[in-house]
Amino acid sequence: MVAREIGIQSSAQSLLEQFRQVRARTLQIVAPLEIEDYVVQTAPFMSPPRWHMGHTTWFFEMLLKQFVPGYELYSEEYLYYFNSYYERFGTRIERDRRGTRSRPTVRETRAYREQVDDAMMKLLMDADDHSQGSEINSLTRLGLEHEMQHQELLVYDIKHLLCDQYAAPPRPIFRPTGFKSAMVEIDGGIFEMGYAGDDFAYDNEKPRHSVYLQDYAVDDAPVTNGDYLAFINDGGYQDHRLWFSDAWSLLHQEEWQAPMYWELEGGQWLIRDFHGLSFARDRAEEPVCHVSYYEASAYAKWAGKRLPTEAEWEKASALASPEEANFYENGLWGVSPVGSFPRGKSKYGCYQMLGDVWEWTMSDYAPYPGFKCEFDEYNDKFFVGQRVLRGGSYATPRSHIRPTYRNFFYPQERWVIAGFRCAKTL
Amino acid sequence: MVAREIGIQSSAQSLLEQFRQVRARTLQIVAPLEIEDYVVQTAPFMSPPRWHMGHTTWFFEMLLKQFVPGYELYSEEYLYYFNSYYERFGTRIERDRRGTRSRPTVRETRAYREQVDDAMMKLLMDADDHSQGSEINSLTRLGLEHEMQHQELLVYDIKHLLCDQYAAPPRPIFRPTGFKSAMVEIDGGIFEMGYAGDDFAYDNEKPRHSVYLQDYAVDDAPVTNGDYLAFINDGGYQDHRLWFSDAWSLLHQEEWQAPMYWELEGGQWLIRDFHGLSFARDRAEEPVCHVSYYEASAYAKWAGKRLPTEAEWEKASALASPEEANFYENGLWGVSPVGSFPRGKSKYGCYQMLGDVWEWTMSDYAPYPGFKCEFDEYNDKFFVGQRVLRGGSYATPRSHIRPTYRNFFYPQERWVIAGFRCAKTL
Amino acid sequence: MVAREIGIQSSAQSLLEQFRQVRARTLQIVAPLEIEDYVVQTAPFMSPPRWHMGHTTWFFEMLLKQFVPGYELYSEEYLYYFNSYYERFGTRIERDRRGTRSRPTVRETRAYREQVDDAMMKLLMDADDHSQGSEINSLTRLGLEHEMQHQELLVYDIKHLLCDQYAAPPRPIFRPTGFKSAMVEIDGGIFEMGYAGDDFAYDNEKPRHSVYLQDYAVDDAPVTNGDYLAFINDGGYQDHRLWFSDAWSLLHQEEWQAPMYWELEGGQWLIRDFHGLSFARDRAEEPVCHVSYYEASAYAKWAGKRLPTEAEWEKASALASPEEANFYENGLWGVSPVGSFPRGKSKYGCYQMLGDVWEWTMSDYAPYPGFKCEFDEYNDKFFVGQRVLRGGSYATPRSHIRPTYRNFFYPQERWVIAGFRCAKTL
Amino acid sequence: MVAREIGIQSSAQSLLEQFRQVRARTLQIVAPLEIEDYVVQTAPFMSPPRWHMGHTTWFFEMLLKQFVPGYELYSEEYLYYFNSYYERFGTRIERDRRGTRSRPTVRETRAYREQVDDAMMKLLMDADDHSQGSEINSLTRLGLEHEMQHQELLVYDIKHLLCDQYAAPPRPIFRPTGFKSAMVEIDGGIFEMGYAGDDFAYDNEKPRHSVYLQDYAVDDAPVTNGDYLAFINDGGYQDHRLWFSDAWSLLHQEEWQAPMYWELEGGQWLIRDFHGLSFARDRAEEPVCHVSYYEASAYAKWAGKRLPTEAEWEKASALASPEEANFYENGLWGVSPVGSFPRGKSKYGCYQMLGDVWEWTMSDYAPYPGFKCEFDEYNDKFFVGQRVLRGGSYATPRSHIRPTYRNFFYPQERWVIAGFRCAKTL
Repeated sequence: MVAREIGIQSSAQSLLEQFRQVRARTLQIVAPLEIEDYVVQTAPFMSPPRWHMGHTTWFFEMLLKQFVPGYELYSEEYLYYFNSYYERFGTRIERDRRGTRSRPTVRETRAYREQVDDAMMKLLMDADDHSQGSEINSLTRLGLEHEMQHQELLVYDIKHLLCDQYAAPPRPIFRPTGFKSAMVEIDGGIFEMGYAGDDFAYDNEKPRHSVYLQDYAVDDAPVTNGDYLAFINDGGYQDHRLWFSDAWSLLHQEEWQAPMYWELEGGQWLIRDFHGLSFARDRAEEPVCHVSYYEASAYAKWAGKRLPTEAEWEKASALASPEEANFYENGLWGVSPVGSFPRGKSKYGCYQMLGDVWEWTMSDYAPYPGFKCEFDEYNDKFFVGQRVLRGGSYATPRSHIRPTYRNFFYPQERWVIAGFRCAKTL
Repeated sequence: MVAREIGIQSSAQSLLEQFRQVRARTLQIVAPLEIEDYVVQTAPFMSPPRWHMGHTTWFFEMLLKQFVPGYELYSEEYLYYFNSYYERFGTRIERDRRGTRSRPTVRETRAYREQVDDAMMKLLMDADDHSQGSEINSLTRLGLEHEMQHQELLVYDIKHLLCDQYAAPPRPIFRPTGFKSAMVEIDGGIFEMGYAGDDFAYDNEKPRHSVYLQDYAVDDAPVTNGDYLAFINDGGYQDHRLWFSDAWSLLHQEEWQAPMYWELEGGQWLIRDFHGLSFARDRAEEPVCHVSYYEASAYAKWAGKRLPTEAEWEKASALASPEEANFYENGLWGVSPVGSFPRGKSKYGCYQMLGDVWEWTMSDYAPYPGFKCEFDEYNDKFFVGQRVLRGGSYATPRSHIRPTYRNFFYPQERWVIAGFRCAKTL
Repeated sequence: MVAREIGIQSSAQSLLEQFRQVRARTLQIVAPLEIEDYVVQTAPFMSPPRWHMGHTTWFFEMLLKQFVPGYELYSEEYLYYFNSYYERFGTRIERDRRGTRSRPTVRETRAYREQVDDAMMKLLMDADDHSQGSEINSLTRLGLEHEMQHQELLVYDIKHLLCDQYAAPPRPIFRPTGFKSAMVEIDGGIFEMGYAGDDFAYDNEKPRHSVYLQDYAVDDAPVTNGDYLAFINDGGYQDHRLWFSDAWSLLHQEEWQAPMYWELEGGQWLIRDFHGLSFARDRAEEPVCHVSYYEASAYAKWAGKRLPTEAEWEKASALASPEEANFYENGLWGVSPVGSFPRGKSKYGCYQMLGDVWEWTMSDYAPYPGFKCEFDEYNDKFFVGQRVLRGGSYATPRSHIRPTYRNFFYPQERWVIAGFRCAKTL
Repeated sequence: MVAREIGIQSSAQSLLEQFRQVRARTLQIVAPLEIEDYVVQTAPFMSPPRWHMGHTTWFFEMLLKQFVPGYELYSEEYLYYFNSYYERFGTRIERDRRGTRSRPTVRETRAYREQVDDAMMKLLMDADDHSQGSEINSLTRLGLEHEMQHQELLVYDIKHLLCDQYAAPPRPIFRPTGFKSAMVEIDGGIFEMGYAGDDFAYDNEKPRHSVYLQDYAVDDAPVTNGDYLAFINDGGYQDHRLWFSDAWSLLHQEEWQAPMYWELEGGQWLIRDFHGLSFARDRAEEPVCHVSYYEASAYAKWAGKRLPTEAEWEKASALASPEEANFYENGLWGVSPVGSFPRGKSKYGCYQMLGDVWEWTMSDYAPYPGFKCEFDEYNDKFFVGQRVLRGGSYATPRSHIRPTYRNFFYPQERWVIAGFRCAKTL
C-alpha cells in the first residue's frame, strides 16, 4: 500500500480515539441484525453485512502486514473472501458471489475484528516511535475513512435486504414546513474548486484549481417527492424525449415507473423505507430519493432545467453548515423535509446541500487537472463511466464528509440514497 | 391436491410414528449447522437448508388447508417463499433467488415446523373418523416420501456449501476388498417391469408392464475411481469422439477435467468430500461419484460398452438386498468400496445395485405405457429432457426406496451423488 | 471418414445419375433466390442458403481428399467456413456466426460446386477400378443422403427468411375432404422394428430388433389446424397443467400463444406460409405444422391422449405408400388436407403417415440395442436430449426416406415442418 | 423533425450541388462491393452497407413527408427497416438484427434512393418559393451532414466485413519521415471554446463559451505504432495498475493483447488493414489506430501522461490546416506517418491534429453550458457514458468537419478509426 503524506495533525491519542469510535459504529449499525441477515446477498451490487465487517478489518490487516515485522496473516481464506477489488492483493471471490459462503461465521468475523483491533491499537500507540510512523498514521486514517464509506454502504445493503424489517428507531414526526422552493442566481467567473486544507481529504478532491463558470441559477432545495410525483403523473416515464438513449432502453428492460422502493397500490404510489410503507403524497415535502442519474436527468429536462455541474454545486454550497444537516449521527434513518434546517443554508441561500440525500451532478467522475494519485487502486481506477454526487446523505457519518467530497456511482444505480436539485445557465 | 387411492395399510398409529421419525430426521441432518449455513444458496440448482425445512413443512400445511375446516394460513409470506414449483399454489420466489432472503429466520422456521407438526398429528390421530381419512393418510404418506427426497437433497446441498466443514462422523476405515469387477450375462426376452405391490410407490413406477430385452451383459459392480482415473489418464476428457455433441460444448464451457469435487494438485487428483481431501488413487476401489450422464456415457464409450437401460438395470437388480447396502441409515456420509456388501448381491450376481451411488441409466425419463397421474405436478410435468437413475445413494433413506424407484436428473448435472455401471448388448 | 459396408447394389452408372440429380435439386431450390437471400442468417438455428450449397459440396470434397491421391484442397478458408460440426476436420466458424460473412460469394460457391462435381464424377466413373471403390460408393451415397437432408433444411431456412416473399408455385386449391378423424386400435405384442433391408439406411435405424408393445390406439390422421384451434380457444396456452415444467417456462419466456408462423389479427388467427397469409379457420382440414414437441404434448394431454412411441408409430405405418403422399417432388410447398391421399393409408388404416409433416413421437432419440456406429460424428453424437420424428414432410425428397427413418430435433424446436398425431394405451 | 435556424447562406443552387455530390459519394464508397457484402452484419455494433444506403435515404424521405403536401410513403416496411434509433418515427428493427433481412434488395434500395433523390431535388429547386424554405434548406443540410457521418461509418463497417478483401486503391509508399515527437507547452487561462461561426455546425458544438485551462503540455503528434509496440512489449496489457477497473475486466473478458486488427504471428505483431497484412514494426511511424479509450488511457498512464481534455485539444489545434491533412478525399484508405503534413501544423506546433485518426480526449460527452437542442434525438440523447473524440480520420470527408467538431463513442469501442495523443498539466 502506498501512502504519500497526508497532512493530518491528529496525535496518536486522538487517532486512537477515532479508531475506537469508527470501529464501534460499524458494530452499532449491525447490532439489530439476526445472524441470518449477516450472510445474505440480495443482488450483485449488494454485499452481505458480515462481508463489510470483515472487509473493513481486512483493510487494517493489510496495514499490519506492511508495518509489523513478522506479522502473521490471520487466515488465507479471509484474505480471499474479504478483499473487495484490490488486484495487488491477489485473487478474490467475485463480487456477485459474496453471498454464496456461510463461513467465516459472524462469530468468527467478530473474533477477527477483535484481534486486528488489538494489534492496530498497539501499533498506533507505538506509532510515534516507529520509523514509518507518519505513514502508519496516514494509512490508519485512510482505513477509518474507508470504514465510514462502508458504514454508509451497510445502510444501503441493510435497506435492500430488510427495509422495514430492520429495527430502526421510529420515524420522527415532521410538521409541514410549507417551504416553497425557488432558484437562486449565482454569478459566474473564475471559481476555485477542490480541497486545499490540511486535514484529511481524498486525492480525488485535489488539487484546488480554477474553473470558469457561466452565470447560473440553482434550486435552493432538493427536488421533493411532491415534485417528482407531478413528473410521474405527467407521463414522465412514458415520454422518450426526456430520456437518454441508454436510459430509455434500461427503463424498458427493468420496467421502471417510479424511484426504487416505490410501490403502486390501488393507483397510489407508496414509499417503503426503514419505517414502513406510506403514501408518497403524504411525504410530498421530503427530498425524492433512490433515483438514478438517468431519472434525475429526465426530471430536469421535463422541468426545463438541467443538473448542476459539480463546480456549480460546490460554489453554491459555500458556508453550508454540516452541523445543521441530516447526517448519520442524527439517527433518523430517513430524510427530513425541505426547509427543516433553515440555519444550515449556504452563502447563496441553498438549503440542505449537505446531508439527507446525495445529489447527482452532471459531472463525469474524472481527475482534476494536476491530480496526483495518493492511494493505489482507491480512486483513480474508477475514473470512467461514473457521475459525481455531492453533499452526503442521512447515512453518511458527519465527520466523514466535506463540501469538496466527491462520491461517484454509475448513472443507472438506484440503491444509493441519492436525489438531486436542478440548475440552469443564465 | 389430488390424491387417488394409494394402497397403504398402515394404521393411523404407524403413520403417526413414521411422521414423527421422518420429521425428526430432517432436524437431525441440519443439527450440526451454524445459523449462517441455513440461509446461503451456493448455486442456482442448490437451495438453502432452511428452505428445505420450510418447504417440507409447507407441503403439510397445504394438506391442512385442504382438510381442516377453517384452517388459517400460517403466513402469506411463507406460502410465497416455501413453495417450490407448484403452479397451482400461486406465484413464488424464483428458484435461483432462494438465497436472497434472510427471513423467515431459522428460529421462525422451526416454530413454523412445530406448529404444523402439532396440527398434523392432531389430524392424523383423528383421521379414521374423518370422511376423507383415506385421502389424508395417502397424502400424508406422500408428504413423508417428499420429505425424504428433500432429506437427500439436503445432503447434496450441505455438501456443496460446506463439504468437509460439515461435522460429519469420521470416515470409517475400509480395508481393501480386492474385488475384481466383471460383467454378468443375462438372458433377454419379455420382462415385467414396474411396481405392482400394495405399499406406497410413485405413479411413475406404474403400471407394471412387459418390455422385451435383448440378451445383455452388465457390470457386476459400479465403475470405480480407479477405473475412472484410467479414463482420465487416457485423455478421455480431451477426445471428442467419446462425447455427445452437447456434452463436448459444455465440457469446454465449464472446463471439466474430472468429476465434480475432484481437485488437481501437483499432477495428482484428489477428492474432497465430507471427510476432507484424499488422493483418488488411494480410493481406487470406491464407486466413482459426482459424474454427469455425459461423463458416464463418455466413459462407457471409451470402455467399449454403454450404459444399461432402466429395464436392464431393474432386471439385473432382482433380489438385491436393501439391508445389505449403504443407505443414509448406515451413517457413513460417503461411499463404500466395491465388494463391501457380498451378501447384498442380486440374483444375477450384481453387487451394490442399491445404495452408495445412484446409477445413471440411458433411459429417458418418460411415463410407462398406461401411466396414470396420481399426484398433480409431482412427476409428470418432468417427463422431458431428463435421464433415469436407479438404486439410491448413501444419502437416501432406506425406507424411501425400492428397486422400481425412478429418480431423474438432467444429463449435465453433477451435484447428485451419482455414479454408474456399464452394459452391452450380446 | 470411416464408412463400413453399406449394402447398396447401385452400379456406378446409376449412382452417377443419382449424383447428378441430387446435386441439381439443391440448385433448383435456390434458383428463385436473389443474391442477397443467399448470405443472410435469420436466427442462430438457421443457416444462410449459400452455406448449405457450400457445406454439401465440402462433404464431397472431404471424400475427394480421402480417395484422390494428391488431391489439393480448394481453399483452406472454405474448409473453415463450410464445415458444420465435424470436430475431426478442425476448427470451424461458430454456427450462429454463419451469417457474418459475405465471402465466398454465391458465384464463388457455385464455382466450388462445379469443380468438386467434376472431380466427383470422374472419381465415380472410375470407382469400379479403384481399390477402395466400394467405400467410395458408400460414402458418395451417404453424401447424397446428407445433401437431401440439407435440401430439406434449405426449405426451412428459406421459409424463415422469406416465407411468402419466396417465389413458390401457387397454392393448389384443395376441395374440402370432409374427412373425420378417428382412432384405430392396434394389438400389442412383440414387434420387430428397425431397418433390415439391403439398400441404404442410416446406422441409427439398425439393427432390426424386437420390442414389446401394449395394445394401443392411434389417430388415423394428423391433428389439424381445426383441432389445434379448439385447443388454443380452450385456453390451452394458459393452462399450466397441460405443459411440461420446462415447456411452461419457455412458453412464458418466448410468449408462445400459437404455432410458429401464426399471427393474431383482429382476434383471428392467420397462418403465414409460402403462399401468403390466410385464416387458420379456412385451413381447418390441414395438418397443424410448426409446433414443438412441447406443444404437441400439451395438446395430447388436453385431448386425453399422448403421443405415440416411435415403435407404435412404425408399426402403425406398415404398408403406407410413399407414392401416395405429399413429398418434395409433389411441388406443393405446403401441406395437403387430411384425407387427401386415401390410397396411401397404412395396413392399420392410418392416413398421411408419410409426407406432409414430420410427426413428433414421445421417444427419446437413442441408439437401438446392438447399434453399431457406421459413420463418425453423423448420428451417434446426438443421442441425448432430442426426440424422434417420423414420416417426412412436404419438404423431404421421397427417395430420401423410409418408414424406419428416424429424424430428431430438440423438444423446443418449432422451425421444423413438424406436426403430430396422438395415441393411447388401451 | 424540429430544425431551428441554421445560419447557412448557401443558395438553392449550391445546396443542390452539394446534395448531388454527397449522395454520389455514398455510392462511390460501396461501388467495389459484391451484392453479398451489402447485406451482412458482422457484429451488433456494425450495420450492413445496404442499410446505410437506405437509412440516409430514409432521413430525406422523412423530410419529404414533412414538407411535401400529400407525400406518399415509399414503403411502410422501409420505414421499419431503415429507421436507426428515432423513437418518434415508431418501432423499428433492433440494431443487432439489421443483418437478418435480405430484403429490400440492393437493387430495390437503389431504386428507393433514386426516387427520393428526384423528389428532394425538386423540393430544393422550389425551396425559395416555399413558405418553409429556410427550414427545408436547414434540414437538407443536416441530412447531408448526417449522410457524411454514415459515409464514415460505412468505411468502418466495410473494414470490419472485408478488410483487405475490399478493392481499395493500393497503399501509397511512404518514405520514412524521421519525425521525432515532443511535447509542446501551452499557457493556460481563459479559453473560448465551441463554434461561433455562421456556417453549419451541430448544436453540440455551441454555444462558444469560456473555460479555464491550467498550463499544459501536449504531444505534437499522435502516438505511433512504434510507441504503442513499446507499451505492449513492456507488458502494458498485463499490468493492472495502468487500467481502469472496468477496462481491466473487459480486457480479460475479450482477451485484448493489442489494438483491434492486430494479429500475432510467430511472436511478431502484424496489422491488417485495407491493404493487407504488414509488420507493425515496419509501420512504426504511423499513428496507432483502433484502440479504445481504455487502451489510450492505459498507454498514457504508462507514459506518465494523460489524455488531453477536449478544451486543451481544441486550443492546441488552432490554425491547423484541414487542407494539409489526410481526409477521405485524399483517397488513401489508411493513415499517413507522423510528419507527413509539415505545413498543416497548428499555431502551437502540433501536427496531424486533423485527419488520419480521431483522437480520444478524456472529456465526457456532455452539453456545453447554455446548450440548446436544435435537432430532436440527434445529439442530446447521447449525453451520457461516452467520450469525445476530435479531429476526424482518413475516413472523414474534409467538408464535414471543423476543429470544434465533437465526435463521441463509448470508451470500450475499438472499431472506430481512433488513436490519441497525450498531455500533461504543467
